[in-house]
Amino acid sequence: MTGQERSEEKSECVSLSPMREAVPTPSKCERVCVFGTGDLGRSLGLRLLQAGYGVVFGSRRPHSSSFLPHGAQVLGHAAAAQSAHLIFIAVQREHYDFLVPLANQLKGKVLVDLSNNQRKNQYPEANAEYLQSLVTGAEVVKGFNTLSAWSLQNGPSDANRQVYICGESVEAKQAVIAVATKLGLSALDRGFLSVARELEDFPLQLFPQWRLPLRIAIGLSAAFFFYLLIRDIIYAYVTQGKDISFRIMVSLANKVCPIVSLIMLSLCYLPGVLASFLQLYRGTKYRRFPDWLDRWMLCRKQLGLLALGFAFLHVLYTLIIPIRYYVRFKSTERTVSVIRENRTSEFDTMTAWRSDSYLSLGILGFGLYVLLGITSLPSVSNALSWREFSFVQSKLGHLTLLLCTAHTYLYGWNRFLSSSTYKWYTPPGYMLCLVLPSVVLLLKLLLITPCRTHTDTHKITPSVGWLPFNHCLPCFWDKRNNNNI
Amino acid sequence: MTGQERSEEKSECVSLSPMREAVPTPSKCERVCVFGTGDLGRSLGLRLLQAGYGVVFGSRRPHSSSFLPHGAQVLGHAAAAQSAHLIFIAVQREHYDFLVPLANQLKGKVLVDLSNNQRKNQYPEANAEYLQSLVTGAEVVKGFNTLSAWSLQNGPSDANRQVYICGESVEAKQAVIAVATKLGLSALDRGFLSVARELEDFPLQLFPQWRLPLRIAIGLSAAFFFYLLIRDIIYAYVTQGKDISFRIMVSLANKVCPIVSLIMLSLCYLPGVLASFLQLYRGTKYRRFPDWLDRWMLCRKQLGLLALGFAFLHVLYTLIIPIRYYVRFKSTERTVSVIRENRTSEFDTMTAWRSDSYLSLGILGFGLYVLLGITSLPSVSNALSWREFSFVQSKLGHLTLLLCTAHTYLYGWNRFLSSSTYKWYTPPGYMLCLVLPSVVLLLKLLLITPCRTHTDTHKITPSVGWLPFNHCLPCFWDKRNNNNI
Amino acid sequence: MTGQERSEEKSECVSLSPMREAVPTPSKCERVCVFGTGDLGRSLGLRLLQAGYGVVFGSRRPHSSSFLPHGAQVLGHAAAAQSAHLIFIAVQREHYDFLVPLANQLKGKVLVDLSNNQRKNQYPEANAEYLQSLVTGAEVVKGFNTLSAWSLQNGPSDANRQVYICGESVEAKQAVIAVATKLGLSALDRGFLSVARELEDFPLQLFPQWRLPLRIAIGLSAAFFFYLLIRDIIYAYVTQGKDISFRIMVSLANKVCPIVSLIMLSLCYLPGVLASFLQLYRGTKYRRFPDWLDRWMLCRKQLGLLALGFAFLHVLYTLIIPIRYYVRFKSTERTVSVIRENRTSEFDTMTAWRSDSYLSLGILGFGLYVLLGITSLPSVSNALSWREFSFVQSKLGHLTLLLCTAHTYLYGWNRFLSSSTYKWYTPPGYMLCLVLPSVVLLLKLLLITPCRTHTDTHKITPSVGWLPFNHCLPCFWDKRNNNNI
Repeated sequence: MTGQERSEEKSECVSLSPMREAVPTPSKCERVCVFGTGDLGRSLGLRLLQAGYGVVFGSRRPHSSSFLPHGAQVLGHAAAAQSAHLIFIAVQREHYDFLVPLANQLKGKVLVDLSNNQRKNQYPEANAEYLQSLVTGAEVVKGFNTLSAWSLQNGPSDANRQVYICGESVEAKQAVIAVATKLGLSALDRGFLSVARELEDFPLQLFPQWRLPLRIAIGLSAAFFFYLLIRDIIYAYVTQGKDISFRIMVSLANKVCPIVSLIMLSLCYLPGVLASFLQLYRGTKYRRFPDWLDRWMLCRKQLGLLALGFAFLHVLYTLIIPIRYYVRFKSTERTVSVIRENRTSEFDTMTAWRSDSYLSLGILGFGLYVLLGITSLPSVSNALSWREFSFVQSKLGHLTLLLCTAHTYLYGWNRFLSSSTYKWYTPPGYMLCLVLPSVVLLLKLLLITPCRTHTDTHKITPSVGWLPFNHCLPCFWDKRNNNNI
Repeated sequence: MTGQERSEEKSECVSLSPMREAVPTPSKCERVCVFGTGDLGRSLGLRLLQAGYGVVFGSRRPHSSSFLPHGAQVLGHAAAAQSAHLIFIAVQREHYDFLVPLANQLKGKVLVDLSNNQRKNQYPEANAEYLQSLVTGAEVVKGFNTLSAWSLQNGPSDANRQVYICGESVEAKQAVIAVATKLGLSALDRGFLSVARELEDFPLQLFPQWRLPLRIAIGLSAAFFFYLLIRDIIYAYVTQGKDISFRIMVSLANKVCPIVSLIMLSLCYLPGVLASFLQLYRGTKYRRFPDWLDRWMLCRKQLGLLALGFAFLHVLYTLIIPIRYYVRFKSTERTVSVIRENRTSEFDTMTAWRSDSYLSLGILGFGLYVLLGITSLPSVSNALSWREFSFVQSKLGHLTLLLCTAHTYLYGWNRFLSSSTYKWYTPPGYMLCLVLPSVVLLLKLLLITPCRTHTDTHKITPSVGWLPFNHCLPCFWDKRNNNNI
Repeated sequence: MTGQERSEEKSECVSLSPMREAVPTPSKCERVCVFGTGDLGRSLGLRLLQAGYGVVFGSRRPHSSSFLPHGAQVLGHAAAAQSAHLIFIAVQREHYDFLVPLANQLKGKVLVDLSNNQRKNQYPEANAEYLQSLVTGAEVVKGFNTLSAWSLQNGPSDANRQVYICGESVEAKQAVIAVATKLGLSALDRGFLSVARELEDFPLQLFPQWRLPLRIAIGLSAAFFFYLLIRDIIYAYVTQGKDISFRIMVSLANKVCPIVSLIMLSLCYLPGVLASFLQLYRGTKYRRFPDWLDRWMLCRKQLGLLALGFAFLHVLYTLIIPIRYYVRFKSTERTVSVIRENRTSEFDTMTAWRSDSYLSLGILGFGLYVLLGITSLPSVSNALSWREFSFVQSKLGHLTLLLCTAHTYLYGWNRFLSSSTYKWYTPPGYMLCLVLPSVVLLLKLLLITPCRTHTDTHKITPSVGWLPFNHCLPCFWDKRNNNNI
């Protein structure tokens, strides 16, 4: 940038506040160009002005453009393009054709493609690649497309600071990174223009990391719902001719929820335990895990949060039990029958112990469950040191699993001994759901015991201090996927 | 900045670590001046030192100032003013007079006014404007006043990074923005000095966006409280002479809470639906909404969160029902009367279905309600893409409204047919509160149906991809007001 | 930095995208060196490349290093050290010896020590100090050690942006701060190299601010558990020979939880009230509080959150009461005895009022409790202005304490008059736990009353506007310890 250019820019800036004399400042006031005077273009222009840039809008009808931010210049496309090195293209892809006749003016310029699409795979190639093919002489940089007009106007809030860019030219990307930094954004270079499609798909994504866990949750719920429907309601209808279908709404739901919750909680800890055994078997923790295990580990947080959701519903379904018409009816009926048949029921201390312990363990387990959920909120987990996070998610997480499993065992108590439990030779749902957590807890117990001896092998291998995976502490869910909830 | 100035600054910096030889670095070590040695001045000075600035304090008694951060210089006001281009005024407005005699030294300097007031409209003009009128030769920039001494000492946490500045001179503001950036802050230029009053009022604001929703909540609660007080308690006293005033504490509260919650939830969705119809009627989505609608839309988040609060209380009030003395007394009395009168009550499957469905819908509705609340936490909503946010807030939000409305309809069931329901010819509260959600859901249903045909008109209008408002998806509450909780 | 160096760097940068001609940009593309090709080294290198740096890895076996990010150079240690001014040491402390023979090449270079230890006090001196002693000619800067390889790869999320550095040379630290800023991090200079141990201990810390509150909570729980065990269970066994030990699981837990919760909530407000009285007694608010009071004030947030946890358990324990076997048994027994003894129980309106008020106050108190908890989430509290935060935490906080205290008084009612309450001459637990909150509320009441007259003295003392402590509003917990949850 020559001295002459610099002084030109200064005059541009100073024209914003003509009533004051120019105090010499470093050459902060560069000029940038924005093509497109829609919502996004206007908001971007305003924000650039606020950050101290001189802004030139390029417009088809420079004299009839309204609502543009105060302080910006409006020129025809050609004149605007010539006035700045960096041009933001805030125009929809369908209108890119107007850039073709401007090839001369755009030669050597940096074009920032901000566009998004309505849906994935709307066009054969990425918008940015299409733009590059139209204006081969310019350097196209894809970026800023995750920002909305609103977030630009109101200043980026925290998580919106991160923007991704890509492009062929390192210099062009540097120039865009510099602008982003001045706007208070943090731009991350994702590589060459071939990544543009990925960046364009980003605002269209709908919980990609939640899909597998949600499918597992729905699959498990459906399977157990039908299993329990047959065992509880259809069995009663077939064998005793009783219609107890009303139980679907609360009793059945309150069996499905805890079962799915416990299975998903153990699914959340199983991959960590498996990974530890794999590392022990391989004798090293420096080889990559197989892909399926890696993908599983990456959705532990989602598995855990869905498990918490089911546990929450289970708690509510349990607490409304005494309000239910059915329960109140049965309670009255029981008392009446005690009187009429002149029975005396004996208080059983053992049953009282069991019932209270079962409830108490459930409450403590749920309390820890909620704590795990709170620490996985982005703002909370970000404020934790790695050691604190792994303490909560691994140590307290396994304690949660232990409490919830014990809660379920106490619920079952000695019923597994009675043959009447096995209607149509099928075990009740809570027994099925105990298999996985018991396995996880057993494996975990095996891992804890030889941990001391194992840390010695640990010493042999160099530079481990920063590795997030410590095989003695397979984490509940890990910080890696924090950015994506 | 001349070469000589630069070398002077370097020597200033190097003096901080005299035991080491100076390694040549870029001229990062500028000198800034801080007037005022109170808590804020000291914290700001420390932070500036940490960021690599040379700091000169201006003090009335330069030799008796204590507790100043190590590495800072202390001079008299005049000498300090001359030593730097940028001067932070960390002094209360009442003491600004001491600056008047310094007019010569302050000529051409940038003065940053950090002051705040104790209450709104304490003085006729903004502190920064008053400062500018006192020292006409300097460039006053208002800013940094939202920072507390504590946040400066401990490093800004995330949401505190954003600071606002305003002032007449673009160059002066640029210089302040540069300092802010080095302190890890993100400064946003809000315009000329006339905005200073607004910036000074900012730290004094007390939930400005919550006022309207809170007033609606309090108004609705009071109205329904008195309505139900008359219908339930005064009616019973007048017609039957029974004093059931104790019901105020739980029974009445548990009627008011769900009623207000459901009405506020539908008030939260109504403006979106109205906006869609307005857009359909106008045939365009590029005209501004009327002001009242815009203001309504901007407080949807607050309406929704208050609705969640009332729903939370409703859940608690419902769950303690079986613990209440009144309920336990009635339950015993009922059983006793069954025995004494030798009645046999028949189990009614339909009632069981209805009661359980009613409870189950309520639980699911509350679960989704809580999910909506969690996704509106700033750190969670920031981590969502726009599409994810609108899916949760619009799709799941309307589902919540549907579930809660169905829950209320099931509660009412066929009681609206019985004339005894209409005490003193007034409908019960739950009927009144069903009107609004039913209307919203009906309108929403109308909007969903013709959505396909409408997206065609959509194609005609250019550059829509980034607009946050998609009239097919009127959002629950929108991301715009995230910064303000 | 000479012009020649600069052009060399440019050629380095351009070599990344050889297919494009070099567009002249400011000299952003500096070269940095990374020693160590482990997970952290590789992630850091990738991130530096993405931010536009030229990256040279130093390796023992430069030709066999695999998995290095595309675009980076790999050289032997000596050659790598010579190629850049800034060298990141991503190697474990045990391997630092290899740097000794490189003393010549490292002379005058800036070495960034990224290392962490496995536990506190593992070595006599900090890693960074050890490194400085090995390579006396270089400038060692400790820093970046709180970043994990994962957070580097995925871009820093919000709270991870803040990194701390320390070192002797201001220039060396400036150079590191500049790199941090380009990586999207915000580096804070914590002083000389003697602080390195503190920075190295940071990732190893395990809830240091939670220790005292946790100890208080555990101590109180244990004390009240044994007190109530003796009063309730052992007393019954000794005097009546009844074994009611099953009550430990729920009844006893449900007494300990609310007692500890209320005491901790008042412990959370007591220091603020004490501080106010201290300020009144001293006649100034500009003297430091005694250390014990300062430490107490700094853990108010943790005290409050633990109190909320106990209140949450109390709510769950209360809500499951009607589901308990013991309660259902007793309820049936009571009804049966009414019938058999042909008693008629009279409905007592006063008891109904008391029972319902007690429950209602508890619900409202818990609702506010949860609100306090939500506003102390980092992302929520950061979005509040200081006035809003202090309104919620102080005004609503004291209201919460008032409601919970009133809830407990109503629970007790007139039982304190009956001598049977004082088993073995000991008061019941709820009476003991009422002492502290009553004192806090009384003191607070005294403080509120003379507040008007007191603000006059306030005027005398200068520059108070930014002080976070306003003695008229002693805060629930304050924003100072936000960074640490």
